[in-house]
Amino acid sequence: MAKFKGFLFGVFFVGSIALNIFFLTNNLYAGHVNKQQLSWSQRAAAEAEAVASVSCSGHGITYLDGLFLDEKPVCECNSCYGGPTCSHFLPDCVADADSGDPLFLEPFWMQHAESSAVLVAGWHRMSYVFADQSYMSQVLQNHILKVHSIARNAITKGKYLVFGGGSTQLLSAAVFALSLNSSSLARVVAASPYYPVYKTQTDFFETAHFEFQGDALLMKRTSNSTGNAIEFVTSPNNPDGLLRKAVLPGSSVNAIYDHAYYWPHFTAIPAPADEDVMIFTISKLTGHAGSRFGWALVKDEDVYLNMLKYMQLAELGVSRDTQLRALQLLKVVLEGDGREIFHFAYEKMRDRWEKISQIVSLSKRYTIQDIPPQYCNFFEKVRGPSPAYVWLKCEREEDTNCNAVLRGANIIGRLGSLFNASDRYVRLSLLKRDDDFNLLLYRLKELVSKEGGAETL
Amino acid sequence: MAKFKGFLFGVFFVGSIALNIFFLTNNLYAGHVNKQQLSWSQRAAAEAEAVASVSCSGHGITYLDGLFLDEKPVCECNSCYGGPTCSHFLPDCVADADSGDPLFLEPFWMQHAESSAVLVAGWHRMSYVFADQSYMSQVLQNHILKVHSIARNAITKGKYLVFGGGSTQLLSAAVFALSLNSSSLARVVAASPYYPVYKTQTDFFETAHFEFQGDALLMKRTSNSTGNAIEFVTSPNNPDGLLRKAVLPGSSVNAIYDHAYYWPHFTAIPAPADEDVMIFTISKLTGHAGSRFGWALVKDEDVYLNMLKYMQLAELGVSRDTQLRALQLLKVVLEGDGREIFHFAYEKMRDRWEKISQIVSLSKRYTIQDIPPQYCNFFEKVRGPSPAYVWLKCEREEDTNCNAVLRGANIIGRLGSLFNASDRYVRLSLLKRDDDFNLLLYRLKELVSKEGGAETL
Repeated sequence: MAKFKGFLFGVFFVGSIALNIFFLTNNLYAGHVNKQQLSWSQRAAAEAEAVASVSCSGHGITYLDGLFLDEKPVCECNSCYGGPTCSHFLPDCVADADSGDPLFLEPFWMQHAESSAVLVAGWHRMSYVFADQSYMSQVLQNHILKVHSIARNAITKGKYLVFGGGSTQLLSAAVFALSLNSSSLARVVAASPYYPVYKTQTDFFETAHFEFQGDALLMKRTSNSTGNAIEFVTSPNNPDGLLRKAVLPGSSVNAIYDHAYYWPHFTAIPAPADEDVMIFTISKLTGHAGSRFGWALVKDEDVYLNMLKYMQLAELGVSRDTQLRALQLLKVVLEGDGREIFHFAYEKMRDRWEKISQIVSLSKRYTIQDIPPQYCNFFEKVRGPSPAYVWLKCEREEDTNCNAVLRGANIIGRLGSLFNASDRYVRLSLLKRDDDFNLLLYRLKELVSKEGGAETL
Repeated sequence: MAKFKGFLFGVFFVGSIALNIFFLTNNLYAGHVNKQQLSWSQRAAAEAEAVASVSCSGHGITYLDGLFLDEKPVCECNSCYGGPTCSHFLPDCVADADSGDPLFLEPFWMQHAESSAVLVAGWHRMSYVFADQSYMSQVLQNHILKVHSIARNAITKGKYLVFGGGSTQLLSAAVFALSLNSSSLARVVAASPYYPVYKTQTDFFETAHFEFQGDALLMKRTSNSTGNAIEFVTSPNNPDGLLRKAVLPGSSVNAIYDHAYYWPHFTAIPAPADEDVMIFTISKLTGHAGSRFGWALVKDEDVYLNMLKYMQLAELGVSRDTQLRALQLLKVVLEGDGREIFHFAYEKMRDRWEKISQIVSLSKRYTIQDIPPQYCNFFEKVRGPSPAYVWLKCEREEDTNCNAVLRGANIIGRLGSLFNASDRYVRLSLLKRDDDFNLLLYRLKELVSKEGGAETL
C-alpha cells in the first residue's frame, strides 16, 4: 500500500514538473509575442479589425465610417449586389462603366493589409504648417521622387514639387499659375477628344487672365498666331489611351501635361516625361481616388510659386491626414524592388483589355481604339495595350448615339460628345471592380452575340 | 535521512503545485487580455505607439511622418526650444504670436489618446464617391449636427450641409455660389478690421461675377444702393473677438457668416446662429488646423447646389481620409455629455486672456479690446471674455507702427493694416501652445515693466 502510494505520488510529482516546464516555455513565448503589448492604440486597431472582419460575401465591403445596424457595420454592396451580406445578384442590373473609379486596385491593398494600415493619433499634425513652415511633407516628397525613379516615367531633377487635392485641383492651379505670368488673355485649349473637366473647370473659374477656347487642333488650323495659349495635353489620353504631345508649336504655348495615366498600369513608358508642368495623381497610381491627392512637377520657379500661392489661398495646402495616408501607401509601393504594384496593375488591365478586344473583334458593328505595341522603359520590352478605357465606336450608319445603343443593352458608358467627340463614340471604364468588369463583359458578349451574322459566342 | 528526503520531496511537490496554480491563473488572465489579439493592424498600431513614446522633454513632439535619424523619430521642437530632445531653451528667441495656429488644444487630444486614435486600412474608401454617390460622409454629417445641438451655436434644421477644405475653401465657394445667382457684378465687402484672406482670396479668384470692393462700412456710407453685395461677416470677429451682424441692410446683401470662432471656447453664445450661409471649421473647434476640414450650413437650395458644384470642380470633394479623421475627433467631442472640450478650451482661453489683461492693465502705452460680459446659452450664465486674439493698440502718439514697437521687444504680431485697420494695432495670437503663450506673456511683462511710471512688476 505504501509502495503504491509512493508510486502515485511520484507520478503526480513528475506530472506537475512537466506541467511547470510546459507553462514556463509557453509563457516565455507568449511574453515574446506580447512584447508588442499595445496600450492607447489597442482600441482603434481592434475596432478597425472588427469592422473589416465582417463578411460581405466577396461582393461588398465595410468601412469604419459606414452605417451601423445593431452595432454591426453594414455591408456596402458592389454594383448589382444586394442583401445584408451582398450575396444576392440583381440580374437585370445595369453594367455601369461610366466612371473612372480605380477600384481594380482594391485587392492589392487587401493583400497588403499589414503594411498599408496607418494609425493616426489624436494629436497628429494639428498645426497649419510643417516644421519648415510649408504645407508639404518633406518625407512624402522624397517618397514621390523615389516612385518616379523606379517607374522611370518622369524626370524629377531640377523640378519643383507642388501638392494638390487630386490632379483636379492642380489642373486649375496650373492654369492660374501660367496665366498670371502674362499681360494678355491666355486661351486654354485641349485636343479632342479631351477630358470634359478641362472645359467645365476652366469655364467655372474663368478670370480676366484666361478663357477656355476649345479644340487645340481647331486653334492650330485657324489661328495665324496662337499668341498666349495654354494647352492641356493628356498623355496617355483620356479617353483613348494614346500617348500624346502638344499640338500647338512650343514657342507660343504653355503646355500642362496631365500624366494621370502615365504609369506602367496603363501604357508603355517609352521614356521618362520631361515637360515643364507635369501632373500626377495617386488615384491612378495606387487607386486611392477618395484621398484627393496629386502632385505637380514644375520647372519654372515663377510658375511653381504661383501654384503654391493658389494652394495657399484655395485651401492652405493639402490635408495632413491625406499626406500621412499617401506616405503609408507609397511606402508599400516602394517595398521590395518597388515594382510589385506595377506588375499587379498591368496584368489586371492587360487581361481586361484582351477580353474586351476579343469580344469586340467578333463584332461588325463596334470597333475599339487601336493601340500599337510599343517599347516600355519600365518592363524593358515591347508590350501591348492595357488602357484605362475602351473608346468604343458605333460603326453602323443609324447608330449615331452610341450611348443610347449601349443603354438598350443595359450598359452605361460616357457619351462621346462630353469629350468634344462624336456621339458615335462611348467611353467604357475598365478601372472598376472585378464585379463591375465581369458584368460589362457579359453584357457586351450578349450585345455582340445578338448581331446576327457575327460568329455565335 | 529518509524522513528528510521525504520532507524535501514534499516541499518541492507543494512548490510545483503552487507554481502550476500561478501559471494557470496568469495564463487565463493573459488569455482574457489577449482576447483582443490583433493581426494585420498590429504593426501600424505598434509603430504609432513607438513614435509617440519618444520623449521630447515636454517641449516638442514626434510624428509618424516626421524625419527619422538612426531609425528613431526626430523631435520637432516647440518654438524657442532646441536640441535632440527639445530640452534647450533658446533665451533670445522671439515670441511669435502671429499665427492663429490652434495648438492650445493639443493637450486635450493627448489626454484622449485612446478614444481619438483611428486606424486607416489600406483599402479605406478608395472610391471617388460614397454609397449615395456623394462626396460627403452621411455619418459625419450627423455628428456635426449633434455637435451644434450640444454647443447650441447654430440652427441646423432646414439647412443644407456642404463640406470643404477648411473654412478657407468654403469662403471662396460661397462667394462663387452667391455671385452666380445674379446678372450684375457682386461687390464683395467686409467691415474693418477684417480677416485679410477675404481680400487676398477674392482678388486672386476674381471672375466676371464678383469683385472685392473693400470696407463694408465705407460702402454703406457712400452708396445710394448697395445693389448686389456680398458681405463677409465674421462673428466673433477676427481680430477683435466681438460679435457682429452684417452692416449692409438685409434686402440688398447676401451675407456670408464666418463663424469659425463661434464656439464657447472663444465667446459667449447668446443664441444659436441662424443665417442663410454659416461657415465653421474644425480648426477652431478641435484644433485640427492641419486636417483642412470645414462645413457650411446653407439655407437656399440654389446656393447649396452651386457650392456643391464648386467642390466638385475644385477638388471632387473633401478627402475621405480627412472625413474619417474628423468623424473620430467628433466622436470624442460627443463623448459623455459632449461638453468636455468646451470647458477645457474656455478655461484655457479665459485664463490666458486674464493674464494678458492683467499685464496690459498696468501699462500706460498699450490697450486691448474691451469685451463686455454677456449671457451665454451654452454655459447658461453671464460669462467674461476668452477671445482667440489680443487686438493690441499702441496709444503713444509716436508709436504709429505698433508691430515695430513689439518687434523691438522681441514679440512678433500681425500688423493692423493687414486687417484694413491702423498700424497702431497689432493682433497677438492666444491660440498656440503653452510654451508660446508663456513666452509671449513674459515678453509683454518685460515690455510693460520697462515703461517707467508704470507699476513695477
